[in-house]
Amino acid sequence: MNVLDQTPDAALRARARRVIPGGMYGHMRSEGLPAGYPQFFARGEGCHLWDVNGRRYIDFMCSWGPIILGHQHPEVTEAALRQAALGDCLNGPSERMVELAERLVALLPHADWAMFAKNGTDATTTCVTIARATTGRRKILVAKGAYHGAIPWCTPHPLGVTSEDRAHLLYFTFNDIASLETAADQAGGDLAGILVSAFRHDYAQDQHLPDPAFARRLRELCDATGATLILDDVRAGFRLSMRGSWDSLGVQPDLSAWSKAIANGYALAAVTGNDHFRDAASRIYVTGSFWTSAVAMAAALATLDCLERENGPERMRAMGQRLRDGIAAQAKVAGIGIRQSGPPQMPTILFDDDATFAKGERFCAEALKRGVYLHPKHNMFLSAAHTEADIDEALVATQQAFAALRT
Amino acid sequence: MNVLDQTPDAALRARARRVIPGGMYGHMRSEGLPAGYPQFFARGEGCHLWDVNGRRYIDFMCSWGPIILGHQHPEVTEAALRQAALGDCLNGPSERMVELAERLVALLPHADWAMFAKNGTDATTTCVTIARATTGRRKILVAKGAYHGAIPWCTPHPLGVTSEDRAHLLYFTFNDIASLETAADQAGGDLAGILVSAFRHDYAQDQHLPDPAFARRLRELCDATGATLILDDVRAGFRLSMRGSWDSLGVQPDLSAWSKAIANGYALAAVTGNDHFRDAASRIYVTGSFWTSAVAMAAALATLDCLERENGPERMRAMGQRLRDGIAAQAKVAGIGIRQSGPPQMPTILFDDDATFAKGERFCAEALKRGVYLHPKHNMFLSAAHTEADIDEALVATQQAFAALRT
Repeated sequence: MNVLDQTPDAALRARARRVIPGGMYGHMRSEGLPAGYPQFFARGEGCHLWDVNGRRYIDFMCSWGPIILGHQHPEVTEAALRQAALGDCLNGPSERMVELAERLVALLPHADWAMFAKNGTDATTTCVTIARATTGRRKILVAKGAYHGAIPWCTPHPLGVTSEDRAHLLYFTFNDIASLETAADQAGGDLAGILVSAFRHDYAQDQHLPDPAFARRLRELCDATGATLILDDVRAGFRLSMRGSWDSLGVQPDLSAWSKAIANGYALAAVTGNDHFRDAASRIYVTGSFWTSAVAMAAALATLDCLERENGPERMRAMGQRLRDGIAAQAKVAGIGIRQSGPPQMPTILFDDDATFAKGERFCAEALKRGVYLHPKHNMFLSAAHTEADIDEALVATQQAFAALRT
Repeated sequence: MNVLDQTPDAALRARARRVIPGGMYGHMRSEGLPAGYPQFFARGEGCHLWDVNGRRYIDFMCSWGPIILGHQHPEVTEAALRQAALGDCLNGPSERMVELAERLVALLPHADWAMFAKNGTDATTTCVTIARATTGRRKILVAKGAYHGAIPWCTPHPLGVTSEDRAHLLYFTFNDIASLETAADQAGGDLAGILVSAFRHDYAQDQHLPDPAFARRLRELCDATGATLILDDVRAGFRLSMRGSWDSLGVQPDLSAWSKAIANGYALAAVTGNDHFRDAASRIYVTGSFWTSAVAMAAALATLDCLERENGPERMRAMGQRLRDGIAAQAKVAGIGIRQSGPPQMPTILFDDDATFAKGERFCAEALKRGVYLHPKHNMFLSAAHTEADIDEALVATQQAFAALRT
């Protein structure tokens, strides 16, 4: 095919295949998505996204989490531009870093201090390092199949990884107290910490909220053994609660890892912790060229202000519930069995009798044709920019997608 | 002391100590610097920096490397703002990512492809992972004392690190062929790669440019054993050459790690590689929430354009040489023995008979008082924004600093 006959997305893919390994890599590679999904995007505004072919979508991925107030949010943009006009990457931090640490400490019941980085992986890795430095122990318990980042100790596809990179990981099953206790026994006196996601949001699986008894047992186990309870709130943070995703369970972690939504798309990650871990946190050596950059911190301050003032988590929950209820009703009418799981603000939709995900992919492809960007396997994300009208518009598309499935 | 009596910097430090471990962490912690150095910064413009106390400095740290065209560079700012008005963090990359990969492949003789990340550590870690994935081997040779990042496998202060994190590292001495060959022999058939900085720029040491014979031997060794030559160009990249820091030596790496200056302070890192490593690069799983964000890539495109058009590396070399010559003459007149090392655009100044660095620290403190921001132990950085007039103004301050040393 002549390049001139191609869509802009197809032409860009062809160019990308020459100069980017595989044409794209990581979680944003579109190859795993149904035909019709674009790889390249041109523009975002509110809950809408435009691909390079000029098509507009009501977006339910929110950039895989970071966009929590919507693209081009005026208050966040204004804060970022105001800071950028002064300076971003300087010889040290700006006042914004102190303000943001103070803000997080005031907001999060578990937190006495905060540190900042760029990737969610930076935050989870720093938590593990602080846990080991504080306890003088090595073993870290993680849930089987949980995603905690993409460097050798945690990446889900371990090509290029050595066995030593994971030498001190032990595995339990999320929400399974017996498996947790077995893993803790295996670690014995070398148990440095337990790293757990806010809820079970594994790829291509139904999601599971934490059983309160499981969460409490994690806390008890850490208290009894002197180990560190690390909450990986990178994906869920600030969508379920402004006070940490386990606050409503009455379980406070020792350390929390944050990123994604904390600055509405500006690159930022954070670790928060309590005083027992402060000394080690001050003595480990972690850093990065852009970790103190001020613009992302100014954006984070504005993001947290807006989310809190507008009760963002509740708003996203309500809009997610509206979507969920509408889809449930449509599936019932269509006589198609589906499973909707996870918190409404981070929904996963899977189809019954769909081991190959063919039904889910067809459904999403049909919705995409009608201007709604869903994901057939991964949890999705609501933002505070989604209105009732947006949800209702999306539901028109999903209704037609269900109808198409029956043909 | 009453907070109201404090300088803004002192007041911010007091606030920071409450909510940030140690008040600050990593390479930007000012505690290792002489008294008088600020911790917090307010503003940057060109080669000038303002601290929160309102003092202006001619800056020779350039944010520890990222600022290569000067703060608030109009062409970079304009490119970034133009992209930001469209979108930054979307559901996938923008066209900017393809353009930037094409730009790097065209610019760098060794490169057939490029990938992007956020931290220099992301880039070095990805290189190591690609080397292992391609070769199916595990051992990585690194120079003793070299800095390649700040996660467990490479951080220079290994508190919280386990021995397994470094199980497959073997060490040689930079510029010492015999030590390199010994380490390669130790690795034997398990040699995956050799990771080497563009030059030896270890903290608190005289810098050493690569001996061309050493660089050639690295290439030969990798060719003979099927191992990967990885150039860590994170710190030096685009200051010594637009074509990779070893291009002038006639030695091309297999993989290169980039970050810091690539986007003039916007958070970005890159890995470039040749076709032999493309397949593994496409199959390892590395990613991050902000790795495809478009604004930093737009900034990188503008940064590379400006550097190339204005012959940035040569300009920085010339200004660095002017500074070096002036300081050498002043030291001679003052009768003070100093050693200036490294490429002129990334100078290190150390004092003779100064094991505790007391002389160097006093010299820098005196220069700082006079509005010149130097570092007593770490290599410094010129930017293309430094003019002859800036250098000459800085030299007035250093002359007075030398005079103060004699009192």
